[in-house]
Order: sequence, then C-alpha cells, then structure tokens
Amino acid sequence: MPDRALPIRPGQADRIVTATLLGQQLGAVFRSWGMSEEHTAITVEMMLYADLRGIDSHGTSMLPAYRDAWDSKALNVRPEIAVVRETATTALVDGGGGLGHVPAHTGMGIAIEKARAAGIGAVAVRNSGHYGAAGAYAERASRAGLIGVATTSTHKPAIVPTFATESMLGTNPLAFAAPAGRRPPFLLDMATSTVALGKITLAKRAGRPIPPGWAIDGRGLPLTDAAEACARRSVTPLGSTPEQSSHKGYGLAAMVEILSSLLSGSGFAGSRSGAGEEPTRVGHFLLALDPGAFREAGAFEAEVGDLIDSLHDARRVDPAQPVLVAGDPERAAYESRLESGIPLSRSLFEDLREIARDCGAPFLLDS
Amino acid sequence: MPDRALPIRPGQADRIVTATLLGQQLGAVFRSWGMSEEHTAITVEMMLYADLRGIDSHGTSMLPAYRDAWDSKALNVRPEIAVVRETATTALVDGGGGLGHVPAHTGMGIAIEKARAAGIGAVAVRNSGHYGAAGAYAERASRAGLIGVATTSTHKPAIVPTFATESMLGTNPLAFAAPAGRRPPFLLDMATSTVALGKITLAKRAGRPIPPGWAIDGRGLPLTDAAEACARRSVTPLGSTPEQSSHKGYGLAAMVEILSSLLSGSGFAGSRSGAGEEPTRVGHFLLALDPGAFREAGAFEAEVGDLIDSLHDARRVDPAQPVLVAGDPERAAYESRLESGIPLSRSLFEDLREIARDCGAPFLLDS
Repeated sequence: MPDRALPIRPGQADRIVTATLLGQQLGAVFRSWGMSEEHTAITVEMMLYADLRGIDSHGTSMLPAYRDAWDSKALNVRPEIAVVRETATTALVDGGGGLGHVPAHTGMGIAIEKARAAGIGAVAVRNSGHYGAAGAYAERASRAGLIGVATTSTHKPAIVPTFATESMLGTNPLAFAAPAGRRPPFLLDMATSTVALGKITLAKRAGRPIPPGWAIDGRGLPLTDAAEACARRSVTPLGSTPEQSSHKGYGLAAMVEILSSLLSGSGFAGSRSGAGEEPTRVGHFLLALDPGAFREAGAFEAEVGDLIDSLHDARRVDPAQPVLVAGDPERAAYESRLESGIPLSRSLFEDLREIARDCGAPFLLDS
Repeated sequence: MPDRALPIRPGQADRIVTATLLGQQLGAVFRSWGMSEEHTAITVEMMLYADLRGIDSHGTSMLPAYRDAWDSKALNVRPEIAVVRETATTALVDGGGGLGHVPAHTGMGIAIEKARAAGIGAVAVRNSGHYGAAGAYAERASRAGLIGVATTSTHKPAIVPTFATESMLGTNPLAFAAPAGRRPPFLLDMATSTVALGKITLAKRAGRPIPPGWAIDGRGLPLTDAAEACARRSVTPLGSTPEQSSHKGYGLAAMVEILSSLLSGSGFAGSRSGAGEEPTRVGHFLLALDPGAFREAGAFEAEVGDLIDSLHDARRVDPAQPVLVAGDPERAAYESRLESGIPLSRSLFEDLREIARDCGAPFLLDS
C-alpha cells in the first residue's frame, strides 16, 4: 500500500493548504512547463486524489521528481497519447513518454467503455510514466458500477526476490475495486513489497530505525537503518522473510511486472540490457469487468456491502481498534482533508516555492 | 501457496506409488461412487496434477474429505454442469453441487475459447466444490498461449482479518500463469494466508511447533501450537502481523472472495446468515487473456522468458540456494515424481484402503 495516513506531528507539517489552492498551484506549474489544459486538469485531479486520501508519497510530493525528469528532458509534457492496437475488448495505448496520469486515465476510460459494451475491457499502456495512486484508476471503474483492476511498473527496481541480494522488481502496486451498492466501494491499493519506499523515507526523515523485515542489506540480512535502506532501494516482498512466505509477495510483484511491463511492451525494471540506453519506460495494466454479466442487477453490489459489514463486525483484538476493510483508511483521510486541508512538510513546501520560481509560475501557497 | 515439496523423511512415506496406479485407484473409487467416466477422468487428472507437483495438500490427500461429503450426501457425484448465463466474453457456470474439478476445468475451457475468439474471457462458477490446485487451471490457459488467472473460495473460513480474532475468509488461493516461449510458463499459485492450512497440519502430525506469525489465538497473539492452530483454523493473512502489512494479505483474501464467491453468487465463507441452512457452496473465477491482442506474435512470451532468466540470475544470498521463480518448485517435484513416483503417508495409504473397501472398489496399491 502506498504511504497513507501519515501522522502529522508538530514541526513536520508547517503548512496546511486546501485541495483547491494546491490544485491551482500544481496547475500553474504544469502550464508553465507547457502542458495542455486538458492534461493539466487530469494530472492535477489524479495527484490531488492521492493527497486528499493520505497517500502522501504519491501526490504532490512527487512533483520534485517530475521536475527533475522535466529538467533532464526525460519528460514529454506534450505527449501524443495514441491507441495503437484495439479490439472490441482490448486496447494498447502509447503514453507518448510523459507522466502516467493521463494515459492511465485514458486507458481506464477505454476499459470502462468496452466493459459496458462487451462485459469486459483490458487495456495495456506502454511508454508511460509515474501515475500516482493505482487506486484512483481502479476506483473509477467501481464508480461506473464495474470491478476495476489497475497495476503499474516503476522506473527503478526496489524489491529483492526471495533468496537474492539485489533489487530486481519495482514495488509494483496492485489495485482492485468493487462497487458495494449502499456502501463505498471495496478498494484495495497495495504495493507488493512489505511496505512502500515512502514509509522508509519517512522513517529516515524522522531519524528513526525501521523494523526488521522491511528491507535487507547486501548479504540478505535485515536492515534497520532507514537511510541505508533508502540508498540501497532494497525492500522485501510482502511476506518479509522466506519463513513467512516472502516468495508470495515476490510472485505477486513479478505478476504485476508481467501485466504492466511485458504485456504493454515497456521493458522491465530489472532488465540489464537497457543499461546506458533509452531508460525503461513505465507500463500499466487496466481492467474493467461488469458484474451485471454474471448476476442479476444489484445482487453483486449488495453482497459486497454485506461482506464489508461482516468484516467490520468481526470480533476485535482491541475494542478500541476497529477491524478495517480495504479503502477505509483512505476514506477517513479524504473526509478529514477535504474539510481541514492537506498538510505539506516544510521541505516540500519550500520545494514547491522553488519549482514555481524556476519555471516562472506564480507561487500561490503563501496566502 | 499450497503445501508443496514436502520433505520425505524415513517413516513418513511408507509407500511410493506411480501416478498411473494412483490414478487407477482414484478412478476406481469415483466410479464406485457413481461418477461418470468423463467426470472421473477430469477429476483424477486434476488430483494427480497436484500430487505430481508436490502440492500434497490438494491432491489425493483430499479424498477422505470428499468421502466424508459423499457419506453425508453433501456431494453430488453426478452433477449437471450448466452454463446459465453467457456473452461473447463472459459465462456463469453452475457446478451442480459436486466437486470443483470438472466445473473449473469446464469454466477455464470456456474462458480459453472466448479469449481465442474475443481476446479475453472471464468465467464465474457457482454451486461448486473443492477443485484441487488453482495452478492447474491457470496453467492450462498458459499452455494455450494465454495469460490465465484462477481463484477459488473455500468451504470454511480460516483467515483472521488484521485486528480481528475470528476467521472470516477462506485461505482463498490466487493463481496466475503466463506463457514464456522457450521456457516453461511463469506460474504463481498461492494461498492468500501466510501459509496454507496443510503446512500447519503437517507440523501437527510431526509434533512440531509452528513459527510465530503463521496463526493467532483468540486474543490475537501468535500461536505456535500446531494442533491448536489446526483446531481453531485461525491463520494470518500474508504479511503475518500489522507491522509487516498483514492488511495486504487480508485485502487479497477479500479480493479473491469477491471474485470467487460474490461474482458467481455462491455466498461467502464468513457469512453468518448461512448458519444452519444450506451449506455455503464454493465459487471460482477463471480468466484467460490473449497477449496477441497487445503485442506482435511471440514478443510477450520471449520477454516473460527473459524476465525469468533475469530473476534466476540475480545475485544470491547463499550460492547453494538458487533464486527461484514462481512455478520452479512444482516443476522440480513433477520431474522427480513422474520418474520416482508419488509418496503417500502411511495414514493416507490406509485411508485409501478403507475408502476403497467401503465403496466396493478394488484396492490396487498393494502390488
């Protein structure tokens, strides 16, 4: 799962801004870079999706990395997004070498249309970039009454396979959403590593060690130094250790790599053949499936709601700690942040000021 | 992942039988129960699939449980398997209240046909039963040149959600296969619990404790007594503990429940409304996807092979322990057991003798 519900402690968050204002700021930067109005609107919407839901590692905090890519001419801000192959149920989309938000949004839109017409739609996206939170795309399908799946590869490997000492696969997230009738959708959005890199970055910034099991060193031993774990980019697959079945998280990460990178023709993160050549581009996979092809109208959604209720009602270890269902933490953050605003760390706030200045965009967050 | 590659120790396996002979024995029992020739052939093939691949908890070892269901009239050995809804890309199959092997085999056959014609096929199966190893169905798609997905629900809950103390979801396996050209397919087959129940049963039989992290007691604390863990059926989701992200395994188990139980209309394992009524039946989900809809012929398969090679070549923690890829352990067991035979524990061997005697089938394994 991406980082979420990061605790806000005094001194950590110096500024709290409204989503509206933050969106205006992001939009001003993208326009100054030359991004079209249409692409700016979608990219900002997808970034705010993460910021509003407490997925702090996948929203505005990515802007410095996007800026670095733009500076080094590795980011096309006016990509031509094209459907290069298509059938009644499938499509291959080329992202044009830009950020991933618009190609993935376009791809899920196509998958939804096909699922409405044909029961199911599957779209692969190649030559794309970072797309924020996978859950945004899966949830979009569920809002359309469909089951949604979204996966993505990443630019650089970070997951170390079981029994190995080097990172070979990205943290390769998997998102799955299902409509739940009277309830908000079931929404799973998880990195296939034990924890997302952002959680380790957070520990590093706070000067805290990380628990054994999250990352390993060059000999395969547990690494508790957060700074070293960040530098090595060597996280464990979900399961943590061979004894606790890390081969399963490793297998899931490879599955996501196959669906995202290989099905789309984007190369893969651990590929050595790409060294020194064109950087490997990110690929995505998006699927929408109509439950109405299997069940009477409303029956599936009602039972997803029943399952969610049943899980919420399970006996608790601690009466004060509710049993949660996938999607609950993000929804709680959304409700809170829509009202109270989005916290930005002092360093991110200053990064935004610098990014705006460097591209000649107005800085709107001082007000 | 189901139990596999169980170590054979002196005294544990008193008999080793060939797959051919074991298949004849299973067939003799099913025929005596009244199963048709066609259903017998497929059921035996699917059971031997597991036995030959070291997935010992999902093959012949299930026969005593099937016999119990047959004894109590809970198993229809002459089910009518029917397609009850169908589109060009989807189907809903009713399993007729029998074992799951034939309905799932039928369902994946339909998914493969639809994927060949329309690029993708998705089939839900309701009113079904235990189907053995999920990997058998996913692998079948990959042998047809397609990506395959297979999931199933289970009769009884066993996974305890994060922060809960009672089992609410089955061990809900997920299998994913992709063709790899010159290589055998990538084949992930995993329970969404930290370990399959069969691994805990094995420890119980051997009188060994289980590691902390596999199961929990009624207060949510680690359970190391294998017998108590078997009795409670209280295993952790993949991830083991909240600190190591057990909410992800829990989310995956719920995803499999939604796809298998709810999409098909089979009810769900943790449902309380079913208490005292008709037992909840098992549901499956099967999907086949044609990579040829996205890539030039052969390109995807070649890159899956490259990815597998690249993972095998990753630097090792221990030079003597190769880095494995999903499907490797099962394939190694297959090659060994096809030649050397399938080991049966003394107690299973005697169970088979009793089952054959009780139904009037010949006992063929004494030779």
